Amino acid sequence: MSEKGITTRAADFAAWYNDVIMRAQLADYSPVRGCMVIRPWGYRIWELMQGALDEMFKATGHENASFPLLIPQSFLAREAEHVEGFAPETAVVTHAGGKELEEPLVIRPTSETIIYAMLAKWVQSYRDLPVLLNQWCNVVRWELRTRLFLRTTEFLWQEGHTAHATADEAEAEARRMLGVYREFMERWMALPVITGLKTDSEKFAGAVRTYACEGLMQDNKGLQCGTSHFLGQNFARAFEVQFQTATGGMDFVWSTSWGVSTRMVGGLIMAHGDDVGLVCPPRLAPLQAIIVPIWKGEAERGGVVEAATRVRDELRRAGVRVDVDVREGMKPGAKYYEWEGRGVPIRLELGPRDLAQGQVMAARRTGGKGPLPLDGLGPRIAQMLDEIQDALFTAAKERREANSVRGVTRDELIARVEGPGGFVYGGFCGDPACEQAIKERTKATVRVLPDAEFRSPEAPARCVWCDRPARLEAVWARAY
Amino acid sequence: MSEKGITTRAADFAAWYNDVIMRAQLADYSPVRGCMVIRPWGYRIWELMQGALDEMFKATGHENASFPLLIPQSFLAREAEHVEGFAPETAVVTHAGGKELEEPLVIRPTSETIIYAMLAKWVQSYRDLPVLLNQWCNVVRWELRTRLFLRTTEFLWQEGHTAHATADEAEAEARRMLGVYREFMERWMALPVITGLKTDSEKFAGAVRTYACEGLMQDNKGLQCGTSHFLGQNFARAFEVQFQTATGGMDFVWSTSWGVSTRMVGGLIMAHGDDVGLVCPPRLAPLQAIIVPIWKGEAERGGVVEAATRVRDELRRAGVRVDVDVREGMKPGAKYYEWEGRGVPIRLELGPRDLAQGQVMAARRTGGKGPLPLDGLGPRIAQMLDEIQDALFTAAKERREANSVRGVTRDELIARVEGPGGFVYGGFCGDPACEQAIKERTKATVRVLPDAEFRSPEAPARCVWCDRPARLEAVWARAY
Repeated sequence: MSEKGITTRAADFAAWYNDVIMRAQLADYSPVRGCMVIRPWGYRIWELMQGALDEMFKATGHENASFPLLIPQSFLAREAEHVEGFAPETAVVTHAGGKELEEPLVIRPTSETIIYAMLAKWVQSYRDLPVLLNQWCNVVRWELRTRLFLRTTEFLWQEGHTAHATADEAEAEARRMLGVYREFMERWMALPVITGLKTDSEKFAGAVRTYACEGLMQDNKGLQCGTSHFLGQNFARAFEVQFQTATGGMDFVWSTSWGVSTRMVGGLIMAHGDDVGLVCPPRLAPLQAIIVPIWKGEAERGGVVEAATRVRDELRRAGVRVDVDVREGMKPGAKYYEWEGRGVPIRLELGPRDLAQGQVMAARRTGGKGPLPLDGLGPRIAQMLDEIQDALFTAAKERREANSVRGVTRDELIARVEGPGGFVYGGFCGDPACEQAIKERTKATVRVLPDAEFRSPEAPARCVWCDRPARLEAVWARAY
Repeated sequence: MSEKGITTRAADFAAWYNDVIMRAQLADYSPVRGCMVIRPWGYRIWELMQGALDEMFKATGHENASFPLLIPQSFLAREAEHVEGFAPETAVVTHAGGKELEEPLVIRPTSETIIYAMLAKWVQSYRDLPVLLNQWCNVVRWELRTRLFLRTTEFLWQEGHTAHATADEAEAEARRMLGVYREFMERWMALPVITGLKTDSEKFAGAVRTYACEGLMQDNKGLQCGTSHFLGQNFARAFEVQFQTATGGMDFVWSTSWGVSTRMVGGLIMAHGDDVGLVCPPRLAPLQAIIVPIWKGEAERGGVVEAATRVRDELRRAGVRVDVDVREGMKPGAKYYEWEGRGVPIRLELGPRDLAQGQVMAARRTGGKGPLPLDGLGPRIAQMLDEIQDALFTAAKERREANSVRGVTRDELIARVEGPGGFVYGGFCGDPACEQAIKERTKATVRVLPDAEFRSPEAPARCVWCDRPARLEAVWARAY
């Protein structure tokens, strides 16, 4: 962060991103390589995310539980793809209580293995199914290159784990939770996402199929914001989670897992922030409005602060998260600057002249300022917050559409990815060799094989790379 | 858990405790030594505890944040008493990402060290104080003997950490949070606790003073349910957390830390459970009422289930956590048995005859059963839950008083501790040698040097052990 302010997005998007985090006091670097400290303002956003998601998970029948942080190293090895994917990234506890352990323990990179070891004990019969669990916790994946929120060695997340009697039911669950994620991202984060299937090279280690929600950031790079996996019977077989079926036979359970993490906070920053700092969608804003009382001298102070407190109380009754900034020895301008950097959606300025006129000056973080009558302010502010939420979503969606191209040729794909970026839709033969060649040439990956709703009106005829017949449409982009 | 049911408290309290946990499906043993799985029913109790406490922490000005799980081993060593207390219990990560680490990392046993390393960066001036932080997280302490909830290698907890400009302010904070804990334990857990100071031998490693809340369990052993520490400037000096004072000088911050953990779930079980299973105080019950519809044949089923659903909806409108047990192929008696084991405070039985009479049979988990009119049921049940909550607290308090003795002699202390147990109040010279001798002889420790409110009307004149003049009154008990 420079002395004068934050780096602009145009000058250096990565530097801008870090500057926004520092100015808004969302997080900080810790003395432990790759691990971050989430400061109260950033953590509050995460808590609001958790609150909304947790309610949606419970409404769809899931229950929270807690499984151990430490997993015997041998557990990972039971599922072949899983160990290949995760073992290189694990942090390993070799000593504890002053002694070397007989078997090293890894810090969970994800909890399938320990959970399936328990399900083998709990699930006996079809009557015990489905099992619909969720866990809010920390995980550790030893990343070489880390970035605050987006990729940290330790991160906070939720991991849903469910077991079902049939493949269809598990598949439906994986799709249902993908839909829950999409709804959350669109309605709460004001972030439009495209949903679809991941290719085999991008899927979760151990999954049969991985579905993802992909958002487009302001630098035109993609961000995978959440994934939902159909695990088939892979983990059930590895951990012998068998049950007696309704017809008296034995079968392995069919399962899913799905997760979103503190990475979403990074997505929120990159989707909405501007060159002044954070822009927080009202539904996830720690404070939705800040009241700045303006006074000259002690004579004015008492009356203004008292009025500001009354306004605060009225807004709180209307369900608005709001505070009054009564700090002494700080000019109003300095307060405006701070709350703008922190992304508070609405600032209310209240001075003696406003009071005399029965009004308050309302400034939107996203632009626009004007007087509002104090009478009926609560519902008016609540409505303004809804408008801001909607406008952020609409703007993000228009930006994404403006930065998506469809039906590209090979040259257009290259030019687009290496130039302005964005989502690039094209035909795909389905051959991992083409996918790999495109990645090597352009650093773009298949973000998703989009769900029907997002596919182009006309299905592409030929693979953008090899010109063989296209089996699928794919969306390419450089990504975080 | 025997085939027929659970062990009685009188037969074997420790076995009873485990049986209650298994029957209520609160938790289970994991394949990782000393680590437990908290199952949904137990986790829901913890979530309700978290919700109540979090609200109290926020109301007293604290903000949540998240600090890293992993701490450089050298950090622990900076505070001499701290490392001596915690180093032997740490789990150590020596390898990560496929390589040996240059410096081993310990999994946090508590987070003072990493937090003070950050405060050194954040705190410059008295204007930055106080810092009032809290963190909900997991910690690991390598325990040799573990017990579900009470002492596990990994446990979930909250740790508050605050920094202040003066010693008085920090001391007031440590006391304030002790009061918050006491209020939570008494009003939510229905668990009366005595508060007071820990002796030096029992205080937190690195603290100047440790305050604690101590509850008495049904086997007459004490349980430390929460602690609050005045840390003086110990960690501030170790991590050089200095600030410019209002008068222009420099000083180290004065700090506190305070924590409660999933151990409280164990306390709840041992304070209220009976030989049938868990008895959950209504305010922390995952379900406060369960409706069991009773029908014979399909003809009756529809009407009864529909009526039960209406009752459920009405109770929910009254703010009651309630569900209908509509499981097929399971007799009402089996349902009663299950929900009793799980500690649901009120069971509502609803059959065709009840419906015809416009009533429902209400059975309290703590005893007593009778009809209630369906009309006005919501407020009536809400009131009954309050009555049950109050009755549990009163019973626990009476039990504690009945099992407390005051002004004992040396022989009485020994006889009491080795006999019926309970809280034993007596004079204490303050010499650690006496404390140690009592512990060796009886396995009893000083639970607290009680706060004024809990002290005996007449201050004891002589030390119960050495007969020298008593400086203090102490409360002895065997404890978990």
